[in-house]
Amino acid sequence: MCDTMDLPFETYLPVWNKLTAAQRQQISGSTARRTVKKGTILHNGSMDCTGLLIVKSGQLRAYILSEAGREITLYRLFDLDICLFSASCIMRSIQFEVTIEAEKDTDLLVIPAKIYKGIMEESAPAANFTNEIMASRFSEVMWLLEQILWKSFDKRLAGFLLEESALEGTDFLRITHEIIGSHLGNPREVVTRMLRYFQSEGMVRLSRGTVEILDRGKLHGLCTE
Amino acid sequence: MCDTMDLPFETYLPVWNKLTAAQRQQISGSTARRTVKKGTILHNGSMDCTGLLIVKSGQLRAYILSEAGREITLYRLFDLDICLFSASCIMRSIQFEVTIEAEKDTDLLVIPAKIYKGIMEESAPAANFTNEIMASRFSEVMWLLEQILWKSFDKRLAGFLLEESALEGTDFLRITHEIIGSHLGNPREVVTRMLRYFQSEGMVRLSRGTVEILDRGKLHGLCTE
Repeated sequence: MCDTMDLPFETYLPVWNKLTAAQRQQISGSTARRTVKKGTILHNGSMDCTGLLIVKSGQLRAYILSEAGREITLYRLFDLDICLFSASCIMRSIQFEVTIEAEKDTDLLVIPAKIYKGIMEESAPAANFTNEIMASRFSEVMWLLEQILWKSFDKRLAGFLLEESALEGTDFLRITHEIIGSHLGNPREVVTRMLRYFQSEGMVRLSRGTVEILDRGKLHGLCTE
Repeated sequence: MCDTMDLPFETYLPVWNKLTAAQRQQISGSTARRTVKKGTILHNGSMDCTGLLIVKSGQLRAYILSEAGREITLYRLFDLDICLFSASCIMRSIQFEVTIEAEKDTDLLVIPAKIYKGIMEESAPAANFTNEIMASRFSEVMWLLEQILWKSFDKRLAGFLLEESALEGTDFLRITHEIIGSHLGNPREVVTRMLRYFQSEGMVRLSRGTVEILDRGKLHGLCTE
């Protein structure tokens, strides 16, 4: 933690200009900076309510975990995104648990849950801002649900490879079949089988721990057909 | 539509007592009563923003629809429940479409979306109340997602039969395998196969268009194992 009074909160918290002077002071007086290494678990069901996380730089991943340890990625958070579910205690109707992990080294601002909850209770702009964040995440989960229900696995895998490639800015993905499977909620074997099919079609080239995208157009065609 | 000034809004809208006199007047002056027959589609993606629906009596079902016409039930709404997604235009971050259908003859109150949005923008209690409704629906969808991802189909089917039985207040369900399949997102054949397995295990008795529950304890055991 360090002094954060100098931070440009209006950049990180779009509702800032609609808060009262007292509310701003509460936030700036309590917000902490936090730097976490890739792989850090920032929040899960058994942890205390961590608070509202604002990504200054880096990347977070929200996922759900089965009892057997399988992971399904719900959504990712990038620079300036706000993580609401790490402060899920502020709303009693949130009856589910997500795990939040730093997927890259990440710089965060942490607004304590209690402070944010207090402001939300008295400020309509803050409450409506929170509503919009939740609606965005809800929309991402609905998209995922539709993918799972209706898109066949080849389409989902093609979409995933293109998305990873866009995120990493390279066609040369260092990722194992195991990890792809845990992102998509499928066993490794199914991923390997489909990747080999993609390779046989000239869409990718596989080697140990890597997937190279060779034919972006063909993968894209799969997703949109 | 008819005069609704005499309605006990505090019963239907828990946030009523935290609204100003002017806000209450806006709601009571614009809210309409509506009675719909079983099977009526109250909202879908191509319709205008219907408004906030409050169930006085009856039953609504929210589902998503694939291009191929398959339906997946997201959740149901009962007496005094509030349907937010029929007024999804009030939040720009809601980027998905659900269909709302009356599953029984239903009496509704309809608060126009524009009126509700205006009140939400100026009232922190109304905005937080809306937040809680959204969080509840989000929780139901997360539960569904987990069912789909992790629960094997026998457990889901057993849970569905017990839930239907509780809803209808009878062990004698008049429901086709086709309809069960569309609720659970599985083909009819899969439902039929599993129901026959349940029958062979003495859990249900099947006849044309009906499923009779014979061993509630055994079905319950399946769900919770």
